[in-house]
Amino acid sequence: MSAASGPVIGLDLGGTKIDAALVGPDGSVLERHTRPTPANDGPVAVLDALGEAARSLDHDARAVGVAAAGVVDPRTGMVTASTDTIRGWAGTALGAGLAERTGLPVACDNDVRATAGPELAALGDDATLLFVAVGTGVGGAVAAGGRMLHGVAGVAGHLGHLPSPEAAGLPCTCGASGHLEAVASGPGITALYERLTGRSVDRLQTVAERAAAGDDDAVRAITIGATATGRALGGLANALGPDRVVVAGGVPRIGPLYRDALDRAFASELLPLLRHLRPRPPRNGTDAAVLGAAALTATAPLHHPRHQKQNL
Amino acid sequence: MSAASGPVIGLDLGGTKIDAALVGPDGSVLERHTRPTPANDGPVAVLDALGEAARSLDHDARAVGVAAAGVVDPRTGMVTASTDTIRGWAGTALGAGLAERTGLPVACDNDVRATAGPELAALGDDATLLFVAVGTGVGGAVAAGGRMLHGVAGVAGHLGHLPSPEAAGLPCTCGASGHLEAVASGPGITALYERLTGRSVDRLQTVAERAAAGDDDAVRAITIGATATGRALGGLANALGPDRVVVAGGVPRIGPLYRDALDRAFASELLPLLRHLRPRPPRNGTDAAVLGAAALTATAPLHHPRHQKQNL
Repeated sequence: MSAASGPVIGLDLGGTKIDAALVGPDGSVLERHTRPTPANDGPVAVLDALGEAARSLDHDARAVGVAAAGVVDPRTGMVTASTDTIRGWAGTALGAGLAERTGLPVACDNDVRATAGPELAALGDDATLLFVAVGTGVGGAVAAGGRMLHGVAGVAGHLGHLPSPEAAGLPCTCGASGHLEAVASGPGITALYERLTGRSVDRLQTVAERAAAGDDDAVRAITIGATATGRALGGLANALGPDRVVVAGGVPRIGPLYRDALDRAFASELLPLLRHLRPRPPRNGTDAAVLGAAALTATAPLHHPRHQKQNL
Repeated sequence: MSAASGPVIGLDLGGTKIDAALVGPDGSVLERHTRPTPANDGPVAVLDALGEAARSLDHDARAVGVAAAGVVDPRTGMVTASTDTIRGWAGTALGAGLAERTGLPVACDNDVRATAGPELAALGDDATLLFVAVGTGVGGAVAAGGRMLHGVAGVAGHLGHLPSPEAAGLPCTCGASGHLEAVASGPGITALYERLTGRSVDRLQTVAERAAAGDDDAVRAITIGATATGRALGGLANALGPDRVVVAGGVPRIGPLYRDALDRAFASELLPLLRHLRPRPPRNGTDAAVLGAAALTATAPLHHPRHQKQNL
């Protein structure tokens, strides 16, 4: 969108920390900064922390891209909905607020769509991409005809809120029941293990370790969670005919038991014309979110400060 | 795509009949023709019948649009897959074959996407549309960012092949199991009634009549089929954030029992930001398919005859 070619700042806002990176025109990370998210201190404190993270880097940055938790509408720059991970986050004017604090044009989107952006760019002009991120929740991004879908109020990509046979009867964070997220997120798999065994467990990694040690219930919980995600993705692939399917997030990294079960379930759902498709891991590693955030400055609407900080 | 403004021909190819219409520049139907589909006589006979249907109308038509059963790739003009409804239909060069027979440019797509085209056009430039057609099968069309999705080999829109909790364990026509179509299509609902009662029944209309007369099993079968479709659409709405959701096809016309159950199930799945959405009936009535076929001549790629029939 801009003729300028200087570095840009990428910010990844999560519930616990803010990752910031100064990204050169060639996509390389020139400098990094991390600070905690003041998640309990309200949206003004979070915007201030984002601004400080940007200022710690912005020697000659020409724009800021921010990938944020919550439902974000990149056209308005607003956070349209959010869980309680960041208190009071829904309703925040993220684009305008950060533009004021940095004096720079700001592009924003939710973290999953931002991360998926470079995946889409790598596919070419008319591509359809199905991107799921499985972690504390099940989020995602869908692109079609080469364009990322945002949907009403930025809601597109909520792949965790499809009905899932494996989640029948389970309450979902959204208030409905039987949604994929309830059985397939990290907490969903952990809770399933607890129901199967009657024992409480601290976190998904423990379930994964027990599965590796031969605990049948742990194997079963992980397999069911992975199967639920694989089947939902396979059904979505039938509906959309994507060129690429990417499975990202922390949960798929627990090991091959998870990934093999997901791949098998995905394949079992596919129409014959789609049987060449395989779920892929994301292209970029731990920098995926900040790089995706930086890339937003070239693809998403820019929200400008009322007063430019830099001399024109 | 063309500067010309004369009438065009719309052809709707189904398993039992071909509907043809001459459609004026204002979208009005100037003339109609119907003939049987020679579904058991092979693709050459079907192309010949389509050509004859067009010629019976083409006084001064400048192009032909054809909405066809099967999976159609409008870019190549090929039928990429098909059920046995039309014998040997997969692999047919629909666009080129019909262009040769009519001497006119031909645009083609599958029947559901063609029917959904005018729905999308009415929504405006950047709209996302979710369109399901529930009949002998469960088909659909998805448009995003104002563009109809075609997907790999034209496969996009197969909404009947999403996993459905209500279809758990049921075999699907595609070879997988547990897909929406297995419980939600007309034959799916009829088969469910047969399983509930142990009695065979000739067709869905009979189940609908028994439901109206107070048969609890008939009510239950229709409610479960409608609920399965409503839930799948609600989950897809969460994933895509559509501007409009349309429910078309013969099954929804069996009455308010079906439509009320579908609406309730759809609403129960929605994320808070989408709770304003209601499934809508299609805009055009019985002419929807031929009008959608005619509209393809302005929106889909044209396949030209090697020799123009008409004087240039």
